[in-house]
Amino acid sequence: MPNKPLSAFPVVVEIPVQWGEMDAYGHVNNTVIFRFFESARIAFLERCRFIAAYDELKIGGILHSTDCRFRRPLYYPDTVLVGARATEILADRFVMEYKVFSTAQNTIAAEGTGTVVSFDYAARSKTKLPAMVIEGLARLDEMS
Amino acid sequence: MPNKPLSAFPVVVEIPVQWGEMDAYGHVNNTVIFRFFESARIAFLERCRFIAAYDELKIGGILHSTDCRFRRPLYYPDTVLVGARATEILADRFVMEYKVFSTAQNTIAAEGTGTVVSFDYAARSKTKLPAMVIEGLARLDEMS
Amino acid sequence: MPNKPLSAFPVVVEIPVQWGEMDAYGHVNNTVIFRFFESARIAFLERCRFIAAYDELKIGGILHSTDCRFRRPLYYPDTVLVGARATEILADRFVMEYKVFSTAQNTIAAEGTGTVVSFDYAARSKTKLPAMVIEGLARLDEMS
Amino acid sequence: MPNKPLSAFPVVVEIPVQWGEMDAYGHVNNTVIFRFFESARIAFLERCRFIAAYDELKIGGILHSTDCRFRRPLYYPDTVLVGARATEILADRFVMEYKVFSTAQNTIAAEGTGTVVSFDYAARSKTKLPAMVIEGLARLDEMS
Repeated sequence: MPNKPLSAFPVVVEIPVQWGEMDAYGHVNNTVIFRFFESARIAFLERCRFIAAYDELKIGGILHSTDCRFRRPLYYPDTVLVGARATEILADRFVMEYKVFSTAQNTIAAEGTGTVVSFDYAARSKTKLPAMVIEGLARLDEMS
Repeated sequence: MPNKPLSAFPVVVEIPVQWGEMDAYGHVNNTVIFRFFESARIAFLERCRFIAAYDELKIGGILHSTDCRFRRPLYYPDTVLVGARATEILADRFVMEYKVFSTAQNTIAAEGTGTVVSFDYAARSKTKLPAMVIEGLARLDEMS
Repeated sequence: MPNKPLSAFPVVVEIPVQWGEMDAYGHVNNTVIFRFFESARIAFLERCRFIAAYDELKIGGILHSTDCRFRRPLYYPDTVLVGARATEILADRFVMEYKVFSTAQNTIAAEGTGTVVSFDYAARSKTKLPAMVIEGLARLDEMS
Repeated sequence: MPNKPLSAFPVVVEIPVQWGEMDAYGHVNNTVIFRFFESARIAFLERCRFIAAYDELKIGGILHSTDCRFRRPLYYPDTVLVGARATEILADRFVMEYKVFSTAQNTIAAEGTGTVVSFDYAARSKTKLPAMVIEGLARLDEMS
């Protein structure tokens, strides 16, 4: 996978742009970029074992906030590579960075961040990041 | 609600068209029409007590098949009225009809059908329509 | 329209939540909140005459960046009120604030911002906000 | 590409399922299947030169109607192969068949049809299929 531009990212997902993701302006709608971020985030949560933490401990990661800077419009046909990594790890949350690389344009089309909060579904409250997730985050960090 | 064109329908939902639902052709994307059908179907399943049947009996309605005939393109701004009714009731399923009325164009923009099959989630197999749903369907039929 | 919680917003759109907008977590997907923002933004761009500016001058508003803080999960059924206003006006852009009010929960479910840049489609470059848009923004500001 | 199950289809597109395409029932929402159909249809329209016909002649293909039979629920993670072919060619339209193959489940998850009508955008009326499209359809037919 030609993911050199995303070499700092331990998790990169590849997604073909669908024609129907373009809106009446003729480029990929802004909400689709957040879908790309989400797909990379889910892959990242799997890799850092936050999905496993939910299954084992009923502690899951909740999206607290997110943002995006749109750099270039995207068009069909294209295939995007979407990178995700953690840039800041706190007691009960971590901040992620996302980048969307357009292979058709050979450039970064969008970038943003998202904050994932650790949530205890049994206690129904925020909680510390599970140890297995902290280890998972460290392992992914070494890869990048 | 000016639902005369849908007077034969016991369930009608009103949905404003969102700008972002238009695709690169500049009209509402075909998948959105199926979202309209779904919204009317869910309201119908609530009204005929199929949602309650799931909660009480773990028997739910599954979408087996659906179709749509697109009559007019839809545009933002508009508000659609989406009617749903059962047209045929069999032992383990019923067939629904949907119509999408455009208030901006004062005409039917799309119409279609959907078949909902009764599914026993405990036994993981098709099953007969629950009695409470058959009663619910009869009650809705009297309204139209 | 019971838009007291959004009384500071000159533009408020009302959108019923569709069942199909919920994701596998059982609440409204994060990308849908950005669709809500977009619907309020489009209504705002109409009201401040940026849509008219595009038709007359080929100068349009482009979404430069956006962010969202998710405060409460949203569920079907619900109707949201989405407010939009300009909070900062610069030579070639303005910053908007959005709030999503859940009528079912009687609280703000999400809030965010978006930056809209003035773009000259003929010259294919950023440009100053057209006079008609500056006037439109002032007029809307007086209403809030 | 392991498209043996779709060997009768001259056009097959490969699409990874996104997590966010699942709905509150925990499987891929029915509207997404129509998005899959659409992506295969657009690829088919490119290959049979209907996109080129629009650019050259302002005659385009419009979706007249479509239907789907849902055979198996789809889940993330999965990659679907979506086949499209023409099964019936008339003077002013052709009928397409679509099949969605789940690589995770190694089976057909959905299948359906769609009717594409030839539309003269200058005259604003239905018209005969352009000769270049009829040739394109014949060429694709030989491949299957």
